[in-house]
Parts: sequence; C-alpha cells; structure tokens
Amino acid sequence: AIFSALEGILQVPKKTAAEKVGDPPFWVGKRVLMTAGPTFEAVDPVRFIGNRSSGKMGFALAEALAQAGAQVTLIAGPVSLPTPPGVERIDAESAEQMLEAVLARLSDTDMFISTAAVADWRVAKPAEQKLKKQSGQDSMTLELVRNPDIVATVAQHPERPRWVVGFAAETDNLLEHAREKLQQKGLDMIVANQVGDGRAFGQADNEAWLLHRDGRETHFPLRRKEALAEALIQTMENWLNDSKD
Amino acid sequence: AIFSALEGILQVPKKTAAEKVGDPPFWVGKRVLMTAGPTFEAVDPVRFIGNRSSGKMGFALAEALAQAGAQVTLIAGPVSLPTPPGVERIDAESAEQMLEAVLARLSDTDMFISTAAVADWRVAKPAEQKLKKQSGQDSMTLELVRNPDIVATVAQHPERPRWVVGFAAETDNLLEHAREKLQQKGLDMIVANQVGDGRAFGQADNEAWLLHRDGRETHFPLRRKEALAEALIQTMENWLNDSKD
Repeated sequence: AIFSALEGILQVPKKTAAEKVGDPPFWVGKRVLMTAGPTFEAVDPVRFIGNRSSGKMGFALAEALAQAGAQVTLIAGPVSLPTPPGVERIDAESAEQMLEAVLARLSDTDMFISTAAVADWRVAKPAEQKLKKQSGQDSMTLELVRNPDIVATVAQHPERPRWVVGFAAETDNLLEHAREKLQQKGLDMIVANQVGDGRAFGQADNEAWLLHRDGRETHFPLRRKEALAEALIQTMENWLNDSKD
Repeated sequence: AIFSALEGILQVPKKTAAEKVGDPPFWVGKRVLMTAGPTFEAVDPVRFIGNRSSGKMGFALAEALAQAGAQVTLIAGPVSLPTPPGVERIDAESAEQMLEAVLARLSDTDMFISTAAVADWRVAKPAEQKLKKQSGQDSMTLELVRNPDIVATVAQHPERPRWVVGFAAETDNLLEHAREKLQQKGLDMIVANQVGDGRAFGQADNEAWLLHRDGRETHFPLRRKEALAEALIQTMENWLNDSKD
C-alpha cells in the first residue's frame, strides 16, 4: 500500500480545489473498482438482449479518477471505447461475468462505483444453436430470469468496500427512483441521470444529480461527460472529507 | 442514368480479370442496394434485442462494389463503422425501419444484396417507459412476433431488381440451410457463412460459399473480409456474364 501510494504521488496528480497545502491529495492511492458499459445477455450464439449504454460516462469517470491519483480497475461490458490511460481494464460480457470479475477484486478495494447498465434480466435457457424460424410460427415467448444485482451484492458483502456508489439511469421519476435505490441497496452515494429520448445513453453530454445517504443532493447541469466526471469526483471528495466516514 | 454511368467511368474503377479490352467494366453504373449490420429491436427505451453482426462483411462488399464502379446505396443497421468512400449510406435501426428504407429505393435498383443480420423476431409490445423490477418478481416472459423477411419481400416484389442476393449466417448445417433459403426465398444467389464460436461475426476474417440458383457453388477459404469481398464480386461478375440472365 505504501509503495502504491508513492506510485500515485510520483505521477503528480492534479491538485483539486479542496486540498490545502501539505494535505495528501484525496484520491492518491485510493483503490477504486468500477464497472461500465452495458451487459449483453445471450439469447443464442448470435442474439442477445443488450441496452444502449455506451460506457462513455463510466470511462470518463475512470479517467478522471486515475488522473487524480486513484488506482482504478475498470470492469467493462461490451463497448467500443479505448482504455483510459493508467486504468487497469477487464472485459466482461454478461451480468454474471461482471459480478464474478467484481467479487474477485473486492477485498482490495476502497471504493466501488457501479456505472454499468447491468441487465436486470437474462434469458432463462440460452439456445446452443441459432434459433431457426419455423414456418407458420408467428410468435414466440422468451423466458427471462432475474440477474444478480451487482451493486446491492457488493453493498451487503462481508468484504464491502468503505464506499459503495451506484448509478441510476431512469426514464421517469428520476430523483424518486434514485433515492429509493440509494436506501434499498444500502449505498453511500448514487448518481442519477435521465435516459431515453436520446438523453445520456450514447451521448457526449450528460446531466446528473449526486445523492448522499445522509440526504445531501447536488445537481450538475448538462455538460460534457468528461467535465461532469471531474465535477462528480470533486463533490464526492468534498462530501467524504466533510463526513469523515 | 447516362450521367450516373459517366460518373462511374470518370472515377476510373479498377479493371477486373474477366474484362476484355473494350468491354465496359461489368459493375460500372450498376445500381446496387445493400443492407448491412444487425438490427436492434426495442424492448423498452433503453433495452433491445440485438445480434453480433458487426457489419464488416457488408461494408467491405459495399466498398469493393463502389471501387469497381457500382453506384452503391447502403442501408446500415446500428454499427460503429465509417462509411466506405463513394457509398451513399442510410442508417436504420429495426427490421421494420430497414425494410421501409429498402422499399423506398427499390424501383431504381439493378441488384439487391442483403448482408444485414435482420432480427427474425421483434418484441410484440415495446414498453414506453423503462421496465422496472418488481420486488419478489423472479421471472418474466417477453412476447415476440415475426419480423418481415426483407430479402424474401424484395425477391417477390413487383419492382424486384434483376438480381437479388442473400446472406445466410448459420451455426450448423451451413450449406443445407443456405440452399433451402436460396430456393424458398426466390433468390438468385446466396452467400453462406458459418457463425458462432467466435467465427465471422465481429471478426476481421471470414470464410464463405457462394451459391447460384442454377446449382453452381464456390468455396472461398478463410481470408480478410476485404479480400473475400473482392473475390465474391469477381465470381458474381463471372457467373452473371456467363448466364446472361
């Protein structure tokens, strides 16, 4: 850990506004485990159920944290994005694979940030061969079962990191749904953003709220995802310094 | 059409092996309408059923045809690929959108090539809001209905282009399934390739068969998709010159 902290210092991370002269920069040496992007749940060898998360917000956050001196491990779903400099990246496809990758790295983590749009459902019995159309068959049903809830699993885990941060992407009743998730899943903070109608997913810009379990809430107006990432980690730092939790 | 043909000639397309001195190059001025990539069928505003087609084979074919002097219009599903030089590109997302884009351009087409991996099924009633998990709900079913068969629709259309070419991506019994599709859908030619187990979809290389409705069949061993595209259009040209159909 000392060696890791030194490594972080030697990279000369950017000073953030909250830092006083002589203070060690907040993020230096912090071990942050993140997920980003969508998950794909197999229907058969060629088809899957996916979602419109591009991974941009998560990748921007990983980059901002690494630049601030954190040691970032990013579990990435299927996205077409380059790995941010200084970030360790592990690829996963389904929710189950992503959970496995997260749990394998949990014991050594200070903060877990779940930005991935993890599929709530997977196909109960994916077909081993490509499903063929039967002539005359006009409809079919796909049986789905619940996927593990990765961020809730981490928040309730015996090796729970000190801080667990979730993301809520909602099409309606944004803050209400986000507050509910924050409480029900036992998170420390949650980032809420509106999706659908061309918002957030796949876009370069994003608008968000950061909510703390103690009731603090801050709004971040629409801006580039890179700028939003920097603003989010600055506010997290301020809040975590204040609450000393 | 004369102006278009002149445009093609002025681009100085590559001469192909089958051309004799003085012959007009086969593809010059031919109007080729193509589809490529996957289709995404909405489950709700953020989720969809997709497939692993990257669009690379279709885009390589569009580029090779344009270089050979054809006027190529490419209806592209959701892919992250640049538009090949000289190709007119129209984006579509679902099978229904892709069919609509194809039918709107059918009357002015010499050859239709369906390389897209069009979803056989779409969700019967996509949700207008993001589907929420209900607590205690461990399973759900997704009702699917048949999508239009784009290449079969074109092959049986009153404004059917002179040549209709399909693609068959199969995980098993490749040639058997491809011969069946060629006959049942009323196509002139079909390209067959094996998918699944990391083959074809998303890969840079591809292996394929070209099948003609008169029974001619040619195998193309594994090679770069760009090289395969050039070999395929050369064989199509030879066959179409021979049969004068």
